[in-house]
Amino acid sequence: MINIDNINKAKKRLNGIIRPTPMAFAPILSKNLNANIYLKKENLQLTGSFKLRGAYNKIATLSEDERSKGVVAASAGNHAQGVAYSAQHFNCDATIIMPEATPLTKVSGVASYDAEVILHGANYDEAYRYALNYTEKYNKSFVHPFADDDVINGQGTIALEIFEEIDDIDIIVVPIGGGGLISGIATAAKHLKPNIKIIGVVASGAKAMKNSFELKTPIDSVSVRTIADGIAVRDTTPKMLDYVLDLVDEIVEVEDKEIASAILFLLEQHKLVVEGAGAVGTAALMHNKISNLDGKTIVLPLSGGNIDVTMLAQIIEKGLVKSARKMNLIVTLIDKPGSLKNLTNTFENLNANIVQIDYDRNSLSLDFGDANVTISLETKGFEHQTSIRNELKNSGFRFKEL
Amino acid sequence: MINIDNINKAKKRLNGIIRPTPMAFAPILSKNLNANIYLKKENLQLTGSFKLRGAYNKIATLSEDERSKGVVAASAGNHAQGVAYSAQHFNCDATIIMPEATPLTKVSGVASYDAEVILHGANYDEAYRYALNYTEKYNKSFVHPFADDDVINGQGTIALEIFEEIDDIDIIVVPIGGGGLISGIATAAKHLKPNIKIIGVVASGAKAMKNSFELKTPIDSVSVRTIADGIAVRDTTPKMLDYVLDLVDEIVEVEDKEIASAILFLLEQHKLVVEGAGAVGTAALMHNKISNLDGKTIVLPLSGGNIDVTMLAQIIEKGLVKSARKMNLIVTLIDKPGSLKNLTNTFENLNANIVQIDYDRNSLSLDFGDANVTISLETKGFEHQTSIRNELKNSGFRFKEL
Repeated sequence: MINIDNINKAKKRLNGIIRPTPMAFAPILSKNLNANIYLKKENLQLTGSFKLRGAYNKIATLSEDERSKGVVAASAGNHAQGVAYSAQHFNCDATIIMPEATPLTKVSGVASYDAEVILHGANYDEAYRYALNYTEKYNKSFVHPFADDDVINGQGTIALEIFEEIDDIDIIVVPIGGGGLISGIATAAKHLKPNIKIIGVVASGAKAMKNSFELKTPIDSVSVRTIADGIAVRDTTPKMLDYVLDLVDEIVEVEDKEIASAILFLLEQHKLVVEGAGAVGTAALMHNKISNLDGKTIVLPLSGGNIDVTMLAQIIEKGLVKSARKMNLIVTLIDKPGSLKNLTNTFENLNANIVQIDYDRNSLSLDFGDANVTISLETKGFEHQTSIRNELKNSGFRFKEL
Repeated sequence: MINIDNINKAKKRLNGIIRPTPMAFAPILSKNLNANIYLKKENLQLTGSFKLRGAYNKIATLSEDERSKGVVAASAGNHAQGVAYSAQHFNCDATIIMPEATPLTKVSGVASYDAEVILHGANYDEAYRYALNYTEKYNKSFVHPFADDDVINGQGTIALEIFEEIDDIDIIVVPIGGGGLISGIATAAKHLKPNIKIIGVVASGAKAMKNSFELKTPIDSVSVRTIADGIAVRDTTPKMLDYVLDLVDEIVEVEDKEIASAILFLLEQHKLVVEGAGAVGTAALMHNKISNLDGKTIVLPLSGGNIDVTMLAQIIEKGLVKSARKMNLIVTLIDKPGSLKNLTNTFENLNANIVQIDYDRNSLSLDFGDANVTISLETKGFEHQTSIRNELKNSGFRFKEL
């Protein structure tokens, strides 16, 4: 059962095991929205996400006999790490079923906590079904990533920590995938402050819970596709929808490009690595998905930080182009000695740093005697880019932007 | 004067102004070194670095009359933000002299705290001299980035916070540029625990203080070059060397590539954005620059997080290649239909994801009828790369690695 007593009990169990994560005021967001916005930095939790709380609480509530037989979970991400870490703490065998395409870094991350990893299935659903069969066959205990009250009570401890720091909170904005995190947080928060608003955020590419919430009936997605892999849940679990309908006031959605800009904002302004799922609340505020925030005190749990660094590099790259700190151009030159020098001189005079350059005179789209130069420039903002465009035009260069 | 009384006074002044930054155990570093290692996350400080502490304390100790005339600082980085933020708090005019080549993001960061920015000089030294003249001409107060006791006492408050969390500390490893941070931390720490060891870390590309420490006389560098721009100090201030000789037990150095690997480690394992200067302590531990750590309790202040995201993207890119998660190849194919398909089939079978590809048949270095394909692959580690190499060889592909 999910209730404040069980969440308080979970908090005692987690004491000394998890990190009480820091909370901090977000000055720029607060100023932009004329509100008091706080970030609860659960990305700094051990294992890199809040999932440790629920997984540990679940395993702690198993009997010694159950633990001695071992636990099973299906996950390619944060839940896998939470279960493996907790099982290691109880000296209990853990078997984690991961989809076959799981990146090696995630596999070795889980294996570093001495869990056994079985790679099975083309996607999460296949791994999940295999895990359920495996659990039954070997008489072990299954640790569900969200549809389990002991797991949800563990997640609810985040709200208790938040209220230890500030109690005059109007709104908590929480990522929604399966619905475990928001159900736990809402249960504790509404006990402590009944008129608090709990707003959920889904990724537009995985909005089963939002559709279900609006139509008040479980609706599954055909497929999911979002950079917020931590909340990329395809189907709606009826029991979880009941909790969400009971506890959540509103659900909004954010697109991948909005999530990416929130990730870059948190990286640059708050010096935090936050994964897609953890950044959806920030994205919702930055892109005005929630109304009536004026003067309100709002808490955003940043639920996790386990983002692939390759993805992070891509987000930085695209973010730099979008914020006019990088500019990609194709300039068509007359293919003769000195042409390229004239161009690079122009960039030097404009104080634009060339970071990549490619010269091609064989493209079919070129007239004879012409050559294309593809150039990436480091620029200083929109004004700087305007002056570069003007100078290239005034100097008679033919160019287009990529 | 730098002493515990003045550091305690600074702490009272900073109360409610700065963030008491979180400290957390570092499990992987601790396991690898068989020690108890804690990170003091000063990169999460307001303005993104510890410099706020010293700047605020300095401005707070000025008289109202002095403050009404305004303050001046020379800096392209963290100190500029600390001074601008503090001056805004006291409603006092701040003029920040920044070198002309300062990136726009840094200029607008400082300007967002309502400071006046003057771009002057080709480098820091020229900006610094201009700032001193400007201060005298307009009868303002100069806020030195480190050679000022009120600034140093402010930095010392970090040690008081560290000891509030754990007091049984054997070693604190501190970045050294001008020497302000380490002098403040050492003064407080040695008062609280006289036998504590304070170890400084310089960047190999800016090691004036290390050379001076070893020869016990101020030595200047001809030039500095390091990715740790926050500690890229060219000259040694005699007064600062006296403090360092008095307070510091040992100074070690780390190279840029070691700093880069520490930045990537903190990003991936601790979900933190740390700038070069802030990562030198971690780099020193990761690369065994300090001996006799067995069983010791060690604190690493991560001094700041203001790293340019373009630099961060580069560090990720190089780090991925180094840790075998990315592989760059040139494959020479026979330039005929189907050649490229055979190659991409091979990569598909090997489960190696192509992230970039370039096809060239015009290079002078090629035999007639050959074409070069430059390919970037996402790979899963050293073993995976070995199997890719073997499969390419066995299939008769001619290739080299970049």
